[in-house]
Amino acid sequence: MINQLVDKIKKTGAPIVAGLDPTLKFVPEHIKKKAFAEYGETMKGAAEAVWQYNKAIVDAISDLIPAVKPQIAMYEQFGVEGMIVFQRTVEYCKEKGLVVIGDVKRGDIGSTSEAYAVGHLGQVQVGSTLCRGFDEDFVTVNPYLGSDGVKPFIKVCQEEKKGIFVLVKTSNPSSGEFQDRLIKGVDEKGSEERPLYEVVGEQVASWGAECMGDSYSYVGAVVGATYPEQGKILRKIMPKAYILVPGYGAQGGKGADLVHFFNEDGLGAIINSSRGIIAAYQQEKYAGYGAEHFADASRAAVLDMKEDIAQALAARI
Amino acid sequence: MINQLVDKIKKTGAPIVAGLDPTLKFVPEHIKKKAFAEYGETMKGAAEAVWQYNKAIVDAISDLIPAVKPQIAMYEQFGVEGMIVFQRTVEYCKEKGLVVIGDVKRGDIGSTSEAYAVGHLGQVQVGSTLCRGFDEDFVTVNPYLGSDGVKPFIKVCQEEKKGIFVLVKTSNPSSGEFQDRLIKGVDEKGSEERPLYEVVGEQVASWGAECMGDSYSYVGAVVGATYPEQGKILRKIMPKAYILVPGYGAQGGKGADLVHFFNEDGLGAIINSSRGIIAAYQQEKYAGYGAEHFADASRAAVLDMKEDIAQALAARI
Repeated sequence: MINQLVDKIKKTGAPIVAGLDPTLKFVPEHIKKKAFAEYGETMKGAAEAVWQYNKAIVDAISDLIPAVKPQIAMYEQFGVEGMIVFQRTVEYCKEKGLVVIGDVKRGDIGSTSEAYAVGHLGQVQVGSTLCRGFDEDFVTVNPYLGSDGVKPFIKVCQEEKKGIFVLVKTSNPSSGEFQDRLIKGVDEKGSEERPLYEVVGEQVASWGAECMGDSYSYVGAVVGATYPEQGKILRKIMPKAYILVPGYGAQGGKGADLVHFFNEDGLGAIINSSRGIIAAYQQEKYAGYGAEHFADASRAAVLDMKEDIAQALAARI
Repeated sequence: MINQLVDKIKKTGAPIVAGLDPTLKFVPEHIKKKAFAEYGETMKGAAEAVWQYNKAIVDAISDLIPAVKPQIAMYEQFGVEGMIVFQRTVEYCKEKGLVVIGDVKRGDIGSTSEAYAVGHLGQVQVGSTLCRGFDEDFVTVNPYLGSDGVKPFIKVCQEEKKGIFVLVKTSNPSSGEFQDRLIKGVDEKGSEERPLYEVVGEQVASWGAECMGDSYSYVGAVVGATYPEQGKILRKIMPKAYILVPGYGAQGGKGADLVHFFNEDGLGAIINSSRGIIAAYQQEKYAGYGAEHFADASRAAVLDMKEDIAQALAARI
């Protein structure tokens, strides 16, 4: 699946993933009105509004981009009805030829991570039958529990030719609270101190060596666009890891910040934008589209983002 | 809710939480056979088997214990059908008067953690209506993203009088890979090096000070029974945090290992056992019950566990 992702990035010329992270305040009033009229102001009504909103955006942008990243929390907040729409969104995006990265940030002890891994990427045994659950192409994984929390995901990736992105340095303001803590050098690297995110990055490179695609590993990393300097270092520590970069746009990351996340082959990074794309119509820049044409505003935002990244990459050469 | 948990622990004399972590290999054949006959070897069939299994166990032990901890991964592996049974299990246990700890280990950047927090503990706004999602009493939270990933949970806990348990030192063999890394002292504590789990523990104590119940905080911690020495230190670092202790039984933790997790008031810790209780009938010790009477075996295992902990606590005085 990492090979397919790389191919699609080359084909579209857009190292972009659209974050399908719908909150109801992003969904235009006319969609909510219709959904609530049909199902009431209920979880089902909310989920229906989210579904119609997602579908229109995906229809408007699926030819431009290689991948989408639905953030499961935004669906889980609506309980079971939200999870039904999460699944429907995953299926629909795959039908549209998009690679689907489930932003689930799961991670637990071994046997439990195994359950998450089969539920999101693999197949679960029911009697003599194998059944598929949410069936994303990639998921994000939290590394706090160490190797035996991550390896069950890697095992399923090897079987299914799917992939993961491990949280290394997240985009949020307080990510440094633990991730930046200086770790005493007590291993083969000698006595040099280095931040926790580098230690995690080294581990990602080591896990990734176990499952290589053609040029990149099935094991990628999450590094926030809001930390370009750290991105530069991590790019070197994990040369074969695709880096999923959140934090562009609304969180403050700019095109010029992104160049260090890419390798010299122009590959190796995929930039996420969520509300910058899906709620573009709420920005002054795209307000002319109006709420009725929110999906066209999303398309325009994707084209602008593509141009911004291309210019930044061109400027570095 | 922390006050209710403490009251129930006192009332039952059992600082025990039963981990409702069903995998199909724990579910007796006669239950699976019936469920598959009705719904086929499908996700729905698997979920129905899990539900019947859970219900029988809860009916057999709910008078003995204060709380249950369903591990959501074991439900999520069965997709949407699994999530329906997760919700049904949460509701049923609450009807039975049990405190429900959703073992979800969620954690993300601020706005996303907020969605998880309202979805699992709070209420989500749909139009002018407030709706409840999974509605557990407590959830477990992963701290890797720092304060702005944890605080949205704390905010909802303050509003709803609910609680969280933050992962500090997990029970699995490789938990030390990152959690035990020695952190250079760069803060008010001076230059002394200490492991990451202590730094996280200090933060738990600080978060917890913001929302105290009568004698313990709404913000608790997860510390594995498999690491009793670390438990001893963490007990002192977080005196007001209730410690949720996984790893008893199947993972290797013994009654004698547990005493250091408790405060001198005999409170402050609640010990989880999952397969040791729910799959007791598969152990040699309880094999006499047979698969037909699996729930009675679970009851016997709870009574033995209660005795083991009581003896260990008595022996320390």
